[in-house]
Amino acid sequence: MREFALLAEVYRHNASLGERILIPPGDDMGMVRFDGRDVLVAVDQLVGDRHVRMETTPFGAIGRKAVNRCLSDIAAMAAKPVATLAAAALPRSFSEKDALELFEGMREAADAAGAPLVGGDIATTDGPLVCSITAFAEPGPRGAVTRGGARPGDLVYVTGTLGGSMDRDTGAGRHLTFEPRIVLALELAERFDLHAMIDLSDGLGRDLDHIAEQSGVRAVIDGERLPLTPGSDWRGALSDGEDYELCFTVAKSASVPDEVAGVSITRIGRIESAESSAARTVIEINDREIDAASFGWEHGA
Amino acid sequence: MREFALLAEVYRHNASLGERILIPPGDDMGMVRFDGRDVLVAVDQLVGDRHVRMETTPFGAIGRKAVNRCLSDIAAMAAKPVATLAAAALPRSFSEKDALELFEGMREAADAAGAPLVGGDIATTDGPLVCSITAFAEPGPRGAVTRGGARPGDLVYVTGTLGGSMDRDTGAGRHLTFEPRIVLALELAERFDLHAMIDLSDGLGRDLDHIAEQSGVRAVIDGERLPLTPGSDWRGALSDGEDYELCFTVAKSASVPDEVAGVSITRIGRIESAESSAARTVIEINDREIDAASFGWEHGA
Repeated sequence: MREFALLAEVYRHNASLGERILIPPGDDMGMVRFDGRDVLVAVDQLVGDRHVRMETTPFGAIGRKAVNRCLSDIAAMAAKPVATLAAAALPRSFSEKDALELFEGMREAADAAGAPLVGGDIATTDGPLVCSITAFAEPGPRGAVTRGGARPGDLVYVTGTLGGSMDRDTGAGRHLTFEPRIVLALELAERFDLHAMIDLSDGLGRDLDHIAEQSGVRAVIDGERLPLTPGSDWRGALSDGEDYELCFTVAKSASVPDEVAGVSITRIGRIESAESSAARTVIEINDREIDAASFGWEHGA
Repeated sequence: MREFALLAEVYRHNASLGERILIPPGDDMGMVRFDGRDVLVAVDQLVGDRHVRMETTPFGAIGRKAVNRCLSDIAAMAAKPVATLAAAALPRSFSEKDALELFEGMREAADAAGAPLVGGDIATTDGPLVCSITAFAEPGPRGAVTRGGARPGDLVYVTGTLGGSMDRDTGAGRHLTFEPRIVLALELAERFDLHAMIDLSDGLGRDLDHIAEQSGVRAVIDGERLPLTPGSDWRGALSDGEDYELCFTVAKSASVPDEVAGVSITRIGRIESAESSAARTVIEINDREIDAASFGWEHGA
C-alpha cells in the first residue's frame, strides 16, 4: 500500500478543499481556517509489534511514543502545541492496569509538550494494539513551515544525530525516549527564515525527498557530513528512520550555528534546481551519487 | 474495560486542564480555546467485526459509518462541522482498491457534512480493521450544548425512531446508512433553549443516564411513549444502540412540535431531582419502574 499515492487519490476528489483549507493533506500537518484563526492538525498511528516491540516495552513507554510521534509533526511545522486526542484499540489481553499505564504515558507526553489530552476513545480488538493520536497546534510567530518552500541554492541541515534509533535485538532505543523538537523548532523559526522543514520519521533519504518533491527541487546530501549516532553508518542514517530529528533548508546566507537550544545542528547538503533526467534526492558518498529516497521506507508499506 | 472510569482516572491527573479547556473530556466533544476562539474536538473508533460485519459490508459503507459515527458527536453538541481527520490500520488482506473505497467512503461522508477530510494516516495490522476518526467543529450560534445542563422539571425528547438499527442476520441496517443529525441539531438549538443533549450510540438507557449523571438529576422514561422502529420493542429502543438519533431536554414551557426539519420529535420522559435511594435513570413500563441504564452497553466493554 503506497500511503501517499492513496491519500492523494482520495483528496483529489475532495470538493471542499481550497475554501477553508490553507495547507492541504500531504504535509506534516494540515492547516484549517476557523473563523479567522489558523489551526494545524495531524493524525498518526502506532501499531503494536510494528512500531514498538510489545513484549519488551513498558505500556507507559508505548503511550509516550504514540503521542510523541504525533507531536513531532508539530515540531516539523515550527508550530505551537495546543491539544491532543488519543484513541486506542486494545487487545483483549490488556488488563485495566495495562490500559491505565498506556493512557498515563500518553497523558504525560502530551502534558510535557503543553498539548494536554482533551479527549479519548477506547475500543477492543482481536488484533494488535492500535493507538491513534491527533494533535492540534497553532502557527508559530512566523507562520507554519511546510515541506514545499525549499529553493535552489538553499543549504540543508539536520538536528541531532541520525541512525540506530531502535536496537534490533532488544527493541529499545531513542525511538522510545525522544522528545519532540518543538522548543528547538520554534527557536529555529524565530532566528532563521526556514524555507522548508520535515521531521525524520521514515529516514532522511525518504523524508528529504518529500521536501524535494513538494518544493519542485533536487536535494543533494553530502555523505561525509552526516552526523551519525555512534554505531550507525551512512546507510543507517539514511534509512533506519524513527530519528524524530528535524531536517530543514535555509538560504546560503543564513548563519546557522553548530548548536541551537542545546541541540547540535549539522549542514548535510544543498538544494539544486530539479533535473528531469536525474534522481530527485541523492547522496554523494565514496565518489558515487546514489538515489537516497529508495533507502527510506514508507509507513504502511 | 470500563471506558469512562478509565478515561476519568487519566484525566484526573491532567495538570493542564482548566486553562484552555472549556469542556473537559467526558462529553460528546471536548472544547478547547485557541487564541480567543472555541474549537470542539472528538475522536471515535470503528473496529472491524465489532461495529460492522466485514464479510457483508461494502468498504465504502464502512468508511461512511466510521466518519458519520464521529460526526454524530458534532450534532450532539449542536455544533457546526469544520473538518475531519481519518486514520486507518488496514488488515494485510486489504487491496489498494479496498483501501481506496474505504477512504472514498470517509471522504464522501465528511464532505456531505461540510467537514472535509484534511489529513489521514494509513498503517497495516495483523488484526482487524481499525478506523480512527477525529472531528472538529465550532460552537453553534447559541454555544455548545453539553450533557450537563438538564434541570428538574425538564422534558426529555428524542428524534426519529429507536431500536433495530442493525439486522442481526445480515449486519445491514440504519447503522450503516444514517446521516448525522447536524442540520436538525442546529435548528433545534436555534429555536429552543436546549438544556442538555447527547447522540444515541450506546442505547437510550445508557446515553440518557450520561445526561442524568452529568447534570446531577434523575431521568424517567415513559415506556409507552417510545417511538419504536417497526419490528423493535421498548427493550430494543433502550438497549440496541447505534440509533444515532438525538436525545435532549428542554424546559416544560418550550413548545417543541412533532416535527422539525422533516424529522419526527417525540417527548419520551421527564427530568426529576436526584434521589440517592433510587436508580438514576429509569423506564416506567407495564406499571413497573426498571433501571434503564443497565440496558445499554458500553463501547469497549
